[in-house]
Amino acid sequence: MDQYLQAALEEAKTGYEEGGIPIGSVLVHKDKILGRGHNKRVQEGSVVLHGEMDALENAGRQPATVYRECVLYTTLSPCPMCSGTILLYGIPKVVIGENRTFMGEEELLRSRGVEVEVVDSQECVELMQRFIQEKPTLWNEDIGV
Amino acid sequence: MDQYLQAALEEAKTGYEEGGIPIGSVLVHKDKILGRGHNKRVQEGSVVLHGEMDALENAGRQPATVYRECVLYTTLSPCPMCSGTILLYGIPKVVIGENRTFMGEEELLRSRGVEVEVVDSQECVELMQRFIQEKPTLWNEDIGV
Repeated sequence: MDQYLQAALEEAKTGYEEGGIPIGSVLVHKDKILGRGHNKRVQEGSVVLHGEMDALENAGRQPATVYRECVLYTTLSPCPMCSGTILLYGIPKVVIGENRTFMGEEELLRSRGVEVEVVDSQECVELMQRFIQEKPTLWNEDIGV
Repeated sequence: MDQYLQAALEEAKTGYEEGGIPIGSVLVHKDKILGRGHNKRVQEGSVVLHGEMDALENAGRQPATVYRECVLYTTLSPCPMCSGTILLYGIPKVVIGENRTFMGEEELLRSRGVEVEVVDSQECVELMQRFIQEKPTLWNEDIGV
């Protein structure tokens, strides 16, 4: 597995160990991780800090020129909020661990010119499957169901 | 002006007085404000807390059934991030102060069944116009330009 997706998966595993929702993400600019994060719904009671949002928040304020040279790695297909954020900042490429347990707004992203790569990582799938089986209500809350 | 849009405008003015980006929002459930907020880019160095996101964050974790009975009020047309968040949580209606200084993803929202009402408030327009004239670089950063 690519080192950046591996870093995102490590974030997801940290979230799982904290009793949270195991989705992780890293924002990469020219082979350097600018920010990493994981879903903070449980840990911080946050409704906006999905993994991708947390990674962006931890990367801090960046000029548009930087975002336009970034790749966002995430263990799970990005939901409408995270996809909208990718569009807001003009991030040109997203690498997704898997979309079997949840299909996000990949078509919207592609229709707006974002390059979307789905790795289909079995390790990412298994982590989410385990979590969803253990805490289905928490998972539904996170995706507005 | 509607009392809830007025509350959102008060949030926006608070943001302006703090030296921040003057966009405010309130989340309303059955005639009660669940959360209010304003853009926190300057105040907290946040790249995710737009006014709408801050209002949702301050409303805290809510079940999907509550979001589906809410109206989100915002002084400015919602950007892709905030629009995606509206879609994620299934908020059925958005009341927008104005869309003259920035046109957000109103068409995407409508295409997904969200009711979008644009008040076209002169007071909202003037506050944004003053801010954009004073701090154009900060404004561009906030919308990824």
